[in-house]
Amino acid sequence: MRTVTAESITKAFIDYIEPETNPRTRFVLESMVKHLHDFVRETGLTHDEWRKGLELLQKTGEITTPERNEFVLMSDVLGLSSLVDMVNSPDDGTPSSVLGPFHILGAPDLAVGGDMKQNNDGATIIVQGKVSDPDGKPISGAEIEIWQTAENGLYSNQDTKQEEYNLRGHMTVSDDGVYKFTTVRPAPYTVPDDGPVGELLHATGRHPWRPSHLHFIITAPGFRSLVTEVFPSDDPYLDQDAVFGVREKLVMEYVEQTDKSAIPTGLEIGQNVTMPFFTVDFDFILARQ
Amino acid sequence: MRTVTAESITKAFIDYIEPETNPRTRFVLESMVKHLHDFVRETGLTHDEWRKGLELLQKTGEITTPERNEFVLMSDVLGLSSLVDMVNSPDDGTPSSVLGPFHILGAPDLAVGGDMKQNNDGATIIVQGKVSDPDGKPISGAEIEIWQTAENGLYSNQDTKQEEYNLRGHMTVSDDGVYKFTTVRPAPYTVPDDGPVGELLHATGRHPWRPSHLHFIITAPGFRSLVTEVFPSDDPYLDQDAVFGVREKLVMEYVEQTDKSAIPTGLEIGQNVTMPFFTVDFDFILARQ
Repeated sequence: MRTVTAESITKAFIDYIEPETNPRTRFVLESMVKHLHDFVRETGLTHDEWRKGLELLQKTGEITTPERNEFVLMSDVLGLSSLVDMVNSPDDGTPSSVLGPFHILGAPDLAVGGDMKQNNDGATIIVQGKVSDPDGKPISGAEIEIWQTAENGLYSNQDTKQEEYNLRGHMTVSDDGVYKFTTVRPAPYTVPDDGPVGELLHATGRHPWRPSHLHFIITAPGFRSLVTEVFPSDDPYLDQDAVFGVREKLVMEYVEQTDKSAIPTGLEIGQNVTMPFFTVDFDFILARQ
Repeated sequence: MRTVTAESITKAFIDYIEPETNPRTRFVLESMVKHLHDFVRETGLTHDEWRKGLELLQKTGEITTPERNEFVLMSDVLGLSSLVDMVNSPDDGTPSSVLGPFHILGAPDLAVGGDMKQNNDGATIIVQGKVSDPDGKPISGAEIEIWQTAENGLYSNQDTKQEEYNLRGHMTVSDDGVYKFTTVRPAPYTVPDDGPVGELLHATGRHPWRPSHLHFIITAPGFRSLVTEVFPSDDPYLDQDAVFGVREKLVMEYVEQTDKSAIPTGLEIGQNVTMPFFTVDFDFILARQ
């Protein structure tokens, strides 16, 4: 008979997989089980620890709703989501970063130069840049979705005081690939830490803060869709993002301005900014499909 | 700023763990995250595959109830539960094996030689043996819990036609460490394969069968509690247990008997067995605490 031991059980699992299995499924499962088994062997995982791990997964399931996916959040704080982003990021484009749970479909159209700030409190920032291909050629017709928190660190779908699509927009870039809009400076915020993810964070002395950021999804025919976030260089949580979303190439500078001559042309709000205001230049590069 | 890359993210996770963290928690989490990250890097896990994995976990949570813990079952079919059993099994005792989901507290007392078969259909088996310490000395006062399926492959708590504690018993061994009882031969059965675990089994061409077995929990003061199962040598699924529970040292022989002189003394049912009947001798060794 087959002698299954702590050493041979990994091979036993692999031998169970039938020849007609999809090769990629086999490859991924074999790698997963080798690592799971090595983890148990290396740690000498006890029954109590094994039970605790399964209970944590069960509690993660119990707290998950259509509005709060604790499995995604668990993946985020373990660095898994970001790692999947990084291993799939093309070398010649802007890096991707976590989508997060706050994106919703149907954001209102925003013209190039449009005002997303509207009547939100906070300092005005003017964000502009270019969407181009890896050779620097502008991608005419690229589409951009933007979403962000208000000054209180909440997204519109977390905050009943905000209008449904507050601080969300959908823009088609100009023929020369330029995007441009006015908005309010987003704020750092915490990921929910009242569930199993919080248990993990607290057990390791970690905080639940994310640095402030602007979310972007950029799409154009013939190019890989880009889901990303851009972070200000002066954010206090830049070096300790709870979900590992920061990349060196995703850091922008808020340049403080006190002179209205720094206001670019073509803005819907014209010269009508609060002082001081901030300008941000950030270019995106889409990799080819 | 910190440059988090696909290579450095594992170190970033480890650096996030605060110094005052419990050393064992740190050790287990570091090992887990190293293996999770290596898994993503080695497979180049795509966003679709990552999403599919999280969805599988979510579905595992959705189907889990107090009566059906799909996370435990997932751990079982991945070989994780058995591996945890094996790395924690002492070398000088009988190996442990999976507890399974069908154990319930409160089984009725069964005297040494008692009849657990009662009016169940199926061939009579007479199971007997000794519980001893690693030096072969009988452990007087050791307590045994036994549970098993009926001939239809179902446990009493899966089958409304069976009485509440059918084929379950609690025995205190005799002064010379002997246990003995009559019962019916248990049957192979399938683990539930109508959920996420079934999805995994089907994707790899695996069947959901477990070889038939008798479950035992054996406890005695000063010794490590033993949770185990014993399998017949002639079971068709002995070499392909869906949950990897079989160990070489947990295999018993059903010896077919056609002569009543093979019936041991001291049985509650006396000579009153159906023919042919089967005898099983199986000894247990408890490791010291």
